[in-house]
Amino acid sequence: MMRPVHIAGTGMTKFGKQPESSLKSLAIEAVHGALTDASVSVNDVDLVFFANAVAGSITGQEMIPGQVALGATGLLGRPIYNVENACASASSALQLACMAVASGHAEIALAVGVEKMTHPDKRRALAAIGGALDVELATESGNSDRSPFMDHYAQLAKGYFARTDATPRDLAEVAVKNQHNGSLNPLAQYGASLSVDDVLTARSIVDPLTLLMCAPISDGAAAALVVSEGVAAKLGVIAPRVAACVLTSGVADPEVRGSSTERAAAAAYEMAGIGPDEIDLAEVHDAAAPAELLIYEELGLVPKGDGAKFIRSGGAALGGSTPINTSGGLLARGHPIGATGLGQIHELVLQLRGAAGPRQVTGASRALAHNSGGWLGADNAGTVVTVLTN
Amino acid sequence: MMRPVHIAGTGMTKFGKQPESSLKSLAIEAVHGALTDASVSVNDVDLVFFANAVAGSITGQEMIPGQVALGATGLLGRPIYNVENACASASSALQLACMAVASGHAEIALAVGVEKMTHPDKRRALAAIGGALDVELATESGNSDRSPFMDHYAQLAKGYFARTDATPRDLAEVAVKNQHNGSLNPLAQYGASLSVDDVLTARSIVDPLTLLMCAPISDGAAAALVVSEGVAAKLGVIAPRVAACVLTSGVADPEVRGSSTERAAAAAYEMAGIGPDEIDLAEVHDAAAPAELLIYEELGLVPKGDGAKFIRSGGAALGGSTPINTSGGLLARGHPIGATGLGQIHELVLQLRGAAGPRQVTGASRALAHNSGGWLGADNAGTVVTVLTN
Repeated sequence: MMRPVHIAGTGMTKFGKQPESSLKSLAIEAVHGALTDASVSVNDVDLVFFANAVAGSITGQEMIPGQVALGATGLLGRPIYNVENACASASSALQLACMAVASGHAEIALAVGVEKMTHPDKRRALAAIGGALDVELATESGNSDRSPFMDHYAQLAKGYFARTDATPRDLAEVAVKNQHNGSLNPLAQYGASLSVDDVLTARSIVDPLTLLMCAPISDGAAAALVVSEGVAAKLGVIAPRVAACVLTSGVADPEVRGSSTERAAAAAYEMAGIGPDEIDLAEVHDAAAPAELLIYEELGLVPKGDGAKFIRSGGAALGGSTPINTSGGLLARGHPIGATGLGQIHELVLQLRGAAGPRQVTGASRALAHNSGGWLGADNAGTVVTVLTN
Repeated sequence: MMRPVHIAGTGMTKFGKQPESSLKSLAIEAVHGALTDASVSVNDVDLVFFANAVAGSITGQEMIPGQVALGATGLLGRPIYNVENACASASSALQLACMAVASGHAEIALAVGVEKMTHPDKRRALAAIGGALDVELATESGNSDRSPFMDHYAQLAKGYFARTDATPRDLAEVAVKNQHNGSLNPLAQYGASLSVDDVLTARSIVDPLTLLMCAPISDGAAAALVVSEGVAAKLGVIAPRVAACVLTSGVADPEVRGSSTERAAAAAYEMAGIGPDEIDLAEVHDAAAPAELLIYEELGLVPKGDGAKFIRSGGAALGGSTPINTSGGLLARGHPIGATGLGQIHELVLQLRGAAGPRQVTGASRALAHNSGGWLGADNAGTVVTVLTN
């Protein structure tokens, strides 16, 4: 970061199946929420980074979703950039907004992520997700009854079981925790008090994953206003500092060069001057339950191989040493692909302000968001790691 | 611009119908061309902005086209941003690359634009272009025998005829000029020595536009390396300076606030400290012939209403006072949507280096690129105006 940047406000719609909503209605609600939260007038916004991943496939709105979705917000006329990075689209937009403000190019940059996934034909949403793979390689493996990513996560889980003592019960523990957290979040898609057996006996999606171990299809939007230190001071709102926001792309040899998550995390910790042991809470990309266990390790929150141990110990739960996915995560808060990364930021800002209600992490002052997207065969296509501090 | 930025090298594939090509093969050729031209090693590239507009519709490759297309270039691992802005996607990527270097965030940023439009079913390419409109408003007006934009340009032409003394012959003059220029450009899709009557008697697309007044469907890629002044000095290549690169979005009331082209041009002239009368040559967004006449006026190259007068006078031709579209423009060089803006930059860099061969503009030292995309009903969705100087 070249000069300090802050998040002055965030907005978020409820995540969930909202067949009556549109890209436009969702975008407007999230943008107005962020502007109101930050006490910023729409006229003061310098530029907009707009994230969306599947509107092209689902609605036919390709190429200019930002200008179309924001038409009624008063933001037209400004620079509007449409940014894509699959499930990491929203945090990629946030990263560019941070760059624009940190560099002095802008004083107030708006990052918006919007996704409209529900469609009368559910297979269309599932097929659309396949656009986040290399389609030349992926076209033959598609199974339109589930997201192609779930086959990938199932393989990941099996590999993890083979090299550690983890079992499907540990995956279920992740789902139990995140459903509990979701039950405390009024904007979450789901939330329930479940047992490990409830999760294990849910409908099988692809062995070893059951329905409750897979992120749902969601509609939703989230937005954040990134501002300079000077603007933050004038606004008189609690505006957490962006201590780091790093985007990396995946590589063909992550075992040699490090995965996109490992490289983004290392760079973010260095930029923030904060180690993983100093992180008070994190929102991570649990698109499926096994991913969360691996991410604990890749972020350095626990030693390699200790992911299952961490979930069993309660360390990742509310009240634990490092609560993970207090919002409910992708599994329970929901996963409107192009909005997810900014949904994570909304949760972290609430936590750092002490405004997270029944899911508040006591004394939260250093928080991390991890958002990955796409799959290149051996690594995610892109990952963003953000560190916010009070 | 916060610190001076330069274009150290460009690369461009031939534009045209290349059914055997892929996003990957096109991207690789343009990227290697730019790296070689700039004498920059792939390892020295800090980050990549990747532009594409219709791969989602044509090939199913949504969300992560950059990571997929660049897989074999050695660029993976770096930050890769996928940027969309319809026909202005490539120049939006360039604008972000300039921002990243100008701000000190990066020393060497790569902007790449790639498009693969040809498809065994031509209607698919034409329908895909409709994704650059507000699909909620546009779905009923589509005619799959032509791009929906040609109906728009036909209306624009009729309005222009009504308020000036312009006639279809003036539109034909634009096509004659650009086809001539294309015939001098080995990378252009088309190029021919045509008469005004040849153009007027070509197949009618939608009155008053004939086939030769409409940009073709093209495959192609182009890339530019944006570098800091320090890097430019070390490389020992002729690296034109980016005196301005401005993105604006469209508005609902362009007659009040100015069109995106007018506002982008005004901001670019101010940033560059150069007036329109000082521009030696320009590449402009002639997606259809009438647009070129209007753009002369919106860029302030001629007074309002004098567009037709300018083309008739020969002022826009090679050897004229301000040669326009020396590359052949979209009409003859071709219009692979997501690559076009960087194709324009490739031409301007050749011209500023005195390396444009038979189409060289003598003494070219101040050049402008104008790239617009999408349509919101009264204005383009986005426009980028770039000014390069020696």
